[in-house]
Amino acid sequence: MYAPMYDGTVPPTDDDLAATPGRLAARFAAVRHQTEALAAPLDPEDQVVQSMPDCSPTKWHLGHTTWFFERLVLLPWLPGWAPVDPIYDHLFNSYYVGLGSRHPRAARGLLTRPPLARVLDWRASVTQGVLDLMASAGPDALARVMPLVELGIHHEQQHQELLLMDVLHLFAQNPLQPAYLPGDSGTAPVAAITDTPRPVTWTDHPGGIHQIGHDPAAGFGFDNEGPRHQVLLQPYRLADRPVTNADWLEFMAEDGYARAEFWLSDGIARAEAEAWQAPLHWFRPEPDGPWWQMTLRGPMPIDPAAPVVHVSHYEADAFARFSGARLPTEAEWEVAAAGHKVEGNLLPRGVLHPQPADPRQSGGPVQLYGDVWEWTASAYGPYPGFRPAAGAIGEYNGKFMANQMVLRGGSCVTPGGHVRPGYRNFFYPHQRWAFAGLRLAADA
Amino acid sequence: MYAPMYDGTVPPTDDDLAATPGRLAARFAAVRHQTEALAAPLDPEDQVVQSMPDCSPTKWHLGHTTWFFERLVLLPWLPGWAPVDPIYDHLFNSYYVGLGSRHPRAARGLLTRPPLARVLDWRASVTQGVLDLMASAGPDALARVMPLVELGIHHEQQHQELLLMDVLHLFAQNPLQPAYLPGDSGTAPVAAITDTPRPVTWTDHPGGIHQIGHDPAAGFGFDNEGPRHQVLLQPYRLADRPVTNADWLEFMAEDGYARAEFWLSDGIARAEAEAWQAPLHWFRPEPDGPWWQMTLRGPMPIDPAAPVVHVSHYEADAFARFSGARLPTEAEWEVAAAGHKVEGNLLPRGVLHPQPADPRQSGGPVQLYGDVWEWTASAYGPYPGFRPAAGAIGEYNGKFMANQMVLRGGSCVTPGGHVRPGYRNFFYPHQRWAFAGLRLAADA
Amino acid sequence: MYAPMYDGTVPPTDDDLAATPGRLAARFAAVRHQTEALAAPLDPEDQVVQSMPDCSPTKWHLGHTTWFFERLVLLPWLPGWAPVDPIYDHLFNSYYVGLGSRHPRAARGLLTRPPLARVLDWRASVTQGVLDLMASAGPDALARVMPLVELGIHHEQQHQELLLMDVLHLFAQNPLQPAYLPGDSGTAPVAAITDTPRPVTWTDHPGGIHQIGHDPAAGFGFDNEGPRHQVLLQPYRLADRPVTNADWLEFMAEDGYARAEFWLSDGIARAEAEAWQAPLHWFRPEPDGPWWQMTLRGPMPIDPAAPVVHVSHYEADAFARFSGARLPTEAEWEVAAAGHKVEGNLLPRGVLHPQPADPRQSGGPVQLYGDVWEWTASAYGPYPGFRPAAGAIGEYNGKFMANQMVLRGGSCVTPGGHVRPGYRNFFYPHQRWAFAGLRLAADA
Amino acid sequence: MYAPMYDGTVPPTDDDLAATPGRLAARFAAVRHQTEALAAPLDPEDQVVQSMPDCSPTKWHLGHTTWFFERLVLLPWLPGWAPVDPIYDHLFNSYYVGLGSRHPRAARGLLTRPPLARVLDWRASVTQGVLDLMASAGPDALARVMPLVELGIHHEQQHQELLLMDVLHLFAQNPLQPAYLPGDSGTAPVAAITDTPRPVTWTDHPGGIHQIGHDPAAGFGFDNEGPRHQVLLQPYRLADRPVTNADWLEFMAEDGYARAEFWLSDGIARAEAEAWQAPLHWFRPEPDGPWWQMTLRGPMPIDPAAPVVHVSHYEADAFARFSGARLPTEAEWEVAAAGHKVEGNLLPRGVLHPQPADPRQSGGPVQLYGDVWEWTASAYGPYPGFRPAAGAIGEYNGKFMANQMVLRGGSCVTPGGHVRPGYRNFFYPHQRWAFAGLRLAADA
Repeated sequence: MYAPMYDGTVPPTDDDLAATPGRLAARFAAVRHQTEALAAPLDPEDQVVQSMPDCSPTKWHLGHTTWFFERLVLLPWLPGWAPVDPIYDHLFNSYYVGLGSRHPRAARGLLTRPPLARVLDWRASVTQGVLDLMASAGPDALARVMPLVELGIHHEQQHQELLLMDVLHLFAQNPLQPAYLPGDSGTAPVAAITDTPRPVTWTDHPGGIHQIGHDPAAGFGFDNEGPRHQVLLQPYRLADRPVTNADWLEFMAEDGYARAEFWLSDGIARAEAEAWQAPLHWFRPEPDGPWWQMTLRGPMPIDPAAPVVHVSHYEADAFARFSGARLPTEAEWEVAAAGHKVEGNLLPRGVLHPQPADPRQSGGPVQLYGDVWEWTASAYGPYPGFRPAAGAIGEYNGKFMANQMVLRGGSCVTPGGHVRPGYRNFFYPHQRWAFAGLRLAADA
Repeated sequence: MYAPMYDGTVPPTDDDLAATPGRLAARFAAVRHQTEALAAPLDPEDQVVQSMPDCSPTKWHLGHTTWFFERLVLLPWLPGWAPVDPIYDHLFNSYYVGLGSRHPRAARGLLTRPPLARVLDWRASVTQGVLDLMASAGPDALARVMPLVELGIHHEQQHQELLLMDVLHLFAQNPLQPAYLPGDSGTAPVAAITDTPRPVTWTDHPGGIHQIGHDPAAGFGFDNEGPRHQVLLQPYRLADRPVTNADWLEFMAEDGYARAEFWLSDGIARAEAEAWQAPLHWFRPEPDGPWWQMTLRGPMPIDPAAPVVHVSHYEADAFARFSGARLPTEAEWEVAAAGHKVEGNLLPRGVLHPQPADPRQSGGPVQLYGDVWEWTASAYGPYPGFRPAAGAIGEYNGKFMANQMVLRGGSCVTPGGHVRPGYRNFFYPHQRWAFAGLRLAADA
Repeated sequence: MYAPMYDGTVPPTDDDLAATPGRLAARFAAVRHQTEALAAPLDPEDQVVQSMPDCSPTKWHLGHTTWFFERLVLLPWLPGWAPVDPIYDHLFNSYYVGLGSRHPRAARGLLTRPPLARVLDWRASVTQGVLDLMASAGPDALARVMPLVELGIHHEQQHQELLLMDVLHLFAQNPLQPAYLPGDSGTAPVAAITDTPRPVTWTDHPGGIHQIGHDPAAGFGFDNEGPRHQVLLQPYRLADRPVTNADWLEFMAEDGYARAEFWLSDGIARAEAEAWQAPLHWFRPEPDGPWWQMTLRGPMPIDPAAPVVHVSHYEADAFARFSGARLPTEAEWEVAAAGHKVEGNLLPRGVLHPQPADPRQSGGPVQLYGDVWEWTASAYGPYPGFRPAAGAIGEYNGKFMANQMVLRGGSCVTPGGHVRPGYRNFFYPHQRWAFAGLRLAADA
Repeated sequence: MYAPMYDGTVPPTDDDLAATPGRLAARFAAVRHQTEALAAPLDPEDQVVQSMPDCSPTKWHLGHTTWFFERLVLLPWLPGWAPVDPIYDHLFNSYYVGLGSRHPRAARGLLTRPPLARVLDWRASVTQGVLDLMASAGPDALARVMPLVELGIHHEQQHQELLLMDVLHLFAQNPLQPAYLPGDSGTAPVAAITDTPRPVTWTDHPGGIHQIGHDPAAGFGFDNEGPRHQVLLQPYRLADRPVTNADWLEFMAEDGYARAEFWLSDGIARAEAEAWQAPLHWFRPEPDGPWWQMTLRGPMPIDPAAPVVHVSHYEADAFARFSGARLPTEAEWEVAAAGHKVEGNLLPRGVLHPQPADPRQSGGPVQLYGDVWEWTASAYGPYPGFRPAAGAIGEYNGKFMANQMVLRGGSCVTPGGHVRPGYRNFFYPHQRWAFAGLRLAADA
C-alpha cells in the first residue's frame, strides 16, 4: 500500500557488516543519505522548531550526527581536517561533557542559524571526509577508525528514529495536523484484511538458566547490551501479539485511567497531573465521537486491530494489571525472541505507523520486531560486569542507567538493520512520544 | 551612515491622514509593504521560531496583522469575502476573547505550518481585498470602514516594532550572534561625532493645571490616550537627555545592581532571581573585559554616549534613586513634550539602535522621540472618563490596565508617523526586551 | 451580641496621642497587651504554623513586633541594653535589608524554636525595657524616642490585623474548620435586624481641586500618607454602602467569574489558574447547596446583607464592570470620606466579620470604616514630593510602591485608633486573604 | 556514653513474635509506648510542623499509626467500635486510595487541630481498644486479627524511624540548630576509641545460585520481601565496612561533586540544581573551616571514622565510581549478610547517629545492620511471582515499585527487632534525608 522509504533503496543488511572497509563505507554513505531523505519531505521551517525539551529539531539531528563524525572520526584521524566552524562543536554536542561545552538542550529550537542549507553543506563535506579517510587510511588507522564509523552509523540510525518521533510530536501540536507523508485520507489502511484483531494466545516458557546479552562475535552491539551473561528465569508465559487498540479501548471504557488500583503511585500522579485520558496523539474530532490518532501520515481513525502506540510505561503497567497480567522482564523477552527472525514493520517498509498482525498467521509470537517498542518490567541498569568504554564514548549509554525502563523489539520507525534480539532501548516511565506499546506476560 | 529603511520610501506622514479614502488606501498599502520589507532580511527559519512566551515569530506577526484586517474589515464589510482558511481565525487571533478561540500564545512558535509562503499569499490577498473594498464601498460603508483601516494601520505599526524587538531577542539567544542587517563590524557608529556624552542639563516646569490626552481633532489616537483631560502638576524638572550608557556603567561600577537601598522590593527580587548584572543583551566577550551589546546590526561595543536601552522599569527606577532623582510621571513627560516636534532616531532613519545626542545641540530637551522609549513613574490605568469601545475592539487596550507601567516617546524601531505626544506605550515593570531606557526627573 | 475584645479595655484614642510621655507609654502598654490578648485563644501549635508564604505564624508576629522595639528603640537608646538572643535579630527581621540578614519569609513556619514561651518572655522584657526607657530618658532622648515608639505602636497594630488574617487563613485550610472564637452555631448573626440589604443609593461629588494626604498637624500618619497635596477630580458619584453578598451572588449567578468581558486580562488569567468560583473562604457543604463562608467565628452561612469580603482587586474590578460602574480612585474615596467620623465595625467591637449596614440608617455613605477594606482603582505609588525617611525606617513603605493597589477604610479586624481618612493600605491585585471588599463609583 | 532509649525498656525480640496473643499484645503495647517516648522530648510546637513535603509532622505520625489500627483492626473486628472522630479517617489516611479520601500529603503541616493532646487521647483509646480486642476475641477472629496487629506493629516501627528523620530535617532548617536529645557539646563521641577509620578490606563471594527473599517460616516479613526465590550471581567482592566520612572528605577534596565523569546524568543534574557540595545536614561554621554536621544530638564536628550518612543514591553511586568500585546489588548484599547476626548501632542503643566501626574488630563485614542504610544498585521492583495482598493492604508496598532504589541493613534510628536480612527499604535516588550511606562492591 505504501511505497518503501528511501526511493526503494534497501540498506545493506547487518550480515556483511564491516567485512571490508569498502562495504562499511557503502553502508555509511547509505545511512547518511537515508537521514537526508527522511528530512526531505519537510520545509526548512519544519526543521528548526523544537516542540518540547525532550525533542530536537530536525536540523539539529542533521547537525548532531555530523558533529559525531567530525568530532570523533575526522578530527582525530584525518590529517589536516579543520572544523568547518568551531562553534558547531558547541552547538551540536548533545551531552558529552568530556568533549566540552554544549548548547542547552532545551534551547536547540532557538538556532535559526546556521540555516539548514549550511548544515546540509557541512553534512556533505563531513560525509565526504569520512569516505576519504576510509579510502586513504592505512591498516592500523583503519583498525581504529572502522569501529568508530560503525558506532556512528548506529548512532545516526537512532537519530533517524528520534527525528521521526520528534516530527510527529511537532505536527501533533499543530491545529492544521499536517501529514509528514501523504496517507490515504482517513481510511484505516488494513480494513481490507480483517475487522477483528488476532486473538491473544500465549506461549509457555520453562524458565531456567539462559544466556542473554550481546555476543561480540555476532556483529555490532552497543556497550550497554553486554556482557553476555547467564540469567535465571522462573517459568513464564508471553502473549503472542502486542496489546491492540481494541484492547486499549476496553481499558478506557472500564475507566482504566482513573482507577488507582491498577496504577503505580507515581504513574497515577503523572496521569492526573497531565490529564491523561488516552494514549498520546489520540483525539476526538467530536466531543463524544470515536477516537482518532495523529500519525506521520496525518490524522487516522483508530484501527482496533493495530497495536496501541504512544503509551508510557505507567500506562502499559496499569493496563497489564487491569488485564491480570504483567509486563515481561527484558530477559524474558530476549529469551522468548531467541531464534525468531528480525523482521517486521520497520522503517524500510514505509508504513510509518503500527499495523495489525495478520490474523491468519499462526504459531508463536508475532510482531516481536517492528510496529511498536515493547515496554518491559526491567529498570535500565548495567549488566553484570558492564564497564563503559574509556573516554567520551563511555558517556554514550552508561550515564543514563537511572530512572529509565527498558523497551525491546523495535518500531515502525526503526531503521532496517538497526535492531537485534539483545537491543536495549530505554525511556523514562512517563514518556510517551516514542513509538512504544506493550506485550503481556504472566507467571506460568 | 545607514541607508534608510524601506528602499527609501518615506511613509506618508500623519498630517494628511485619512483626508480621502485614496490617501488612506495609499498609506495602508505602504504600511503593509513595510511589514513585509522588515521581514525580508530573514530566512523562513528565522521567521517561525519564538524565543520566549512574550515574543512572537515573525511569521505570526505577518499573519496576525492580516487576520486583523480580514476579521474586522473584510468579513463584515466586503460582500462575498470568505476566509482563506477558517482555521487562521484560531491561529492568528491574539487575545480577542470576544472573537472566538485562540491558539495559545506560548505555542505560537510551534506553527511550522502554514508555511511562510502561504502566509505571504494570504497577506497579499487580504491587502488586495482591503484596497478593493476601499475603492468600491459607498460613503456609508466607507464611514464605517475607514476608522477600522486606520486602526489596523496603527496596529500593524505596533507589530512592526514588536517584530524587530522579537527578532533581536531571538538572535541574542544564538551563540552565532547573527545580525539582522549588516553593521560596521564592531566600531561604535558615532565615534566620529564625539567621545563624551552631552552633559545633563535640566529644564524647569512650573506645574499647575494642564491638558493632557488625545484630542480627537488632532487625528488618530488609540482609545487609551483619551479622553483629553486636566491634570494638576507640582513644579518639576526634567533632564534634557536620556540616561546614557556611560551613566549606566557608573551605576554598575557603584554596585548598583546589588544595593537594595536603590531598589523597589519587587525589583531587586526579580534582579536576584534572574541574576541581572547589566541591561538585557549586554555581554562581555572576555570575563573582565569591556561590555558589548547585541543589536539588530550584530554585536557592538558599548557606546558610552548613546542612551541606555533594554532596561526594565525596575532598573530604571533604581537608577533614578541612585541618581538622587526619580522617573517623571506620564503627565509631566507629556506637558514637557508639548510643542516639540515628533522627530528623531525612529525606524525610518534605519539606524536600528539608539544613538548619542548631538553634544552641540543646545536648549531644551533632546531625543524625546526615537532612540529609546522612556519609562515613567505612572502605572498604566484609565484616564478619567475612559470607556473602551463596544465589541471586540474594546479589548484592544483596556483590559491590560493592570500591573504595567507607561512608557513615552518612541524608539529607534518605532515606525514613522506612529507616535504622538500623548502616545501611551506600556510594559510590565520586569520586561526588558523593548527598546526602553529612561530620562530623569526631579521635584523642583 | 459579641463581647468587646480585650477584656473590655478600650484603647486610648488618637486624640490624646503623644500628648505626654506618660500617655504614650500607656498606649504602648495597652497595644502590647492587645497583641498578646489576640494570641491568647490559640494553642501554641496554632501559633507556629505558616499556611502560605504571604502569611506569618502568630508566634512570628509576636516576635517581629518585639524585634521592632528592641532593634529600633532599645538598642540605640537604652544604655546597657543587650539583645536577649543575638540570633533573634536574624529570625525576626522582616524585610529591613539595611538592618542585616533575615530568615527567609517563606520559612517562618519552620521555627518551632524558640518556643512560644520564650518569645513571650522576650516580649515582656522588651515591653518593660521600653517603659523603663520612657520613664528615664531625658527630654532630648525622648524627642527622638517618642516618634519611634509611636511608629512602633502603629506597626504593631498592623500586625494585629495581619495576625487575624493569617489565623483565619490557617484555620480555613483545616478540614475541622476550627473557630478562633466561638460564634453562634451557624445562624447569621444579623438575621434579627433585616432580611434584605440596604438599597444602593449614590452621593454625587462635584469634582474640582481638593487636598488629600496626611496633615502632620493632625497626629500620626505613615510616611506614605503624605505629603498633603492638591488633586484635581472630575465630578463623580460614590455608592453609599459597600457591595453585599447578595450583590455578589447575583454576579456569580450571571456567570461573572467566567465572562471575560468583565475582567482585566491578568485578572481572568489568575481566576482561571486558581479556579476561582467564589470569594476566598467560601465553600458549599453540599455540592449544589447554599454557600457558606469560613470566618474567625467558624463556618457561617452567607449573610446576603453583609458586605462581601475576601475578594481580590481583580474580582472587585470585574464586579464593578459587571455593574456598569467602576472602583473609586483613592482621592475620590478620601474626598468623599472627609468629615465622616472614623467609626464602625472595627476590631474593638469584637464581631470579627463584616456586618450588614443598618437598613434604617439614611443619608450619605455608611460603613466607610470597618467591616471591609475597600479596593480602589489607584495603583500604590508615591504622592508628589514623597521622600522616604533616612535609614532603615525608610524601607517601611516606599519600596513596596510597585504592582500593588490601594485599599481604603479599614475592616472588622482593624484595631481601634489605627485608621484615618488618609490611611493607605495596599495589597497585590490577586491577593484575597485580607478582609477586603469594595464600594462602587461612577462618573457623574 | 548514651543512655539507651525507652527508659531502658528493651523491646521484645522477634524470636517470640506472635507465639501467643498475649506476647503479641505485649509487643504491641511496647511499640505503641515507644512511639510516644520518641515524641516526648519535643514541644507540641515541634510536633505540628512539616519541613518539606517528603516529611510529616510528629503529630501526624502519632495520628497515622493510630488510624492504621483503628481503621484496619478495630473498625472491622471490634464489635461496637465507633470512630473517635470520623474526619480523622480523612486526615490520617496516608495513601490508601481504596480506603477513601485523604488530606493532601503536602498539607499535613497545616493541621494545628486536632491539638496534640487530643491525638494522644485518641492514641490511648485505640491502643486500649486493640488490647481489649486481643483479650476478648475468639480464635477465629484472632487468626484474622493477629496478622493485622503484627503488620501494624512493623508499620509503626517504620514511622518511628521516619519520625526521627523528619525531626532532624526540621531542626536542621532552624538557625538555632536545636538538639532533639542532648549530646556532648561538640566533641566527637568516639574520639576515645580511635583517630583513624578501620581500613577497608574485602570479602570475596563466589557467586552461583542462591536463595533470597523472605521465608514465611522465619517470622514476619513485608509482602515486598517475598517470594523467596533463586538468584544467579557472578563472583563479587564486598567491602567489610561502610564508606566513612574520611573517605567522603577525600571525594570532596578531589572535586568529586563537580566531576561529571563520576556521575549518572540525572544525578549531576540534580546535584547542580540543588547546589550539592557535601552530604545533607553538613555545614561549615566558618567559610573555609572544617565541616560539621547537624544530628539529632545537635551540631557535631565531622567524625572521620564514622560512616557517611545523608547521601543520596546519586552521590553514593558517584562515590563508588570515583573509587573504581560499584554499589552491590541487593541480592549480593543479602547473600553476603546471610549468617550474620542482626545487631549493631540501632535505635535501642540510643546513640542516634552513626558510629565508627571498632578498628580492632577483624574478620568479615561489620556494621551490616545499624549506623546507616546502605544504598544498593538495585531498582526497587517486584520479586518474581510477587503479588500484592488483596484489598487496601495491597497498597502498602507494591504501588511504589517505580523510580526508587533499594537500601539494605538498617540505621542508627531503626527500631530494634524491625530489620531482617531480607528487609527492603527504598527511596528515590535523589532523596537524602534518610540515614543512608553506602558500602562498596566490585566484580571479583
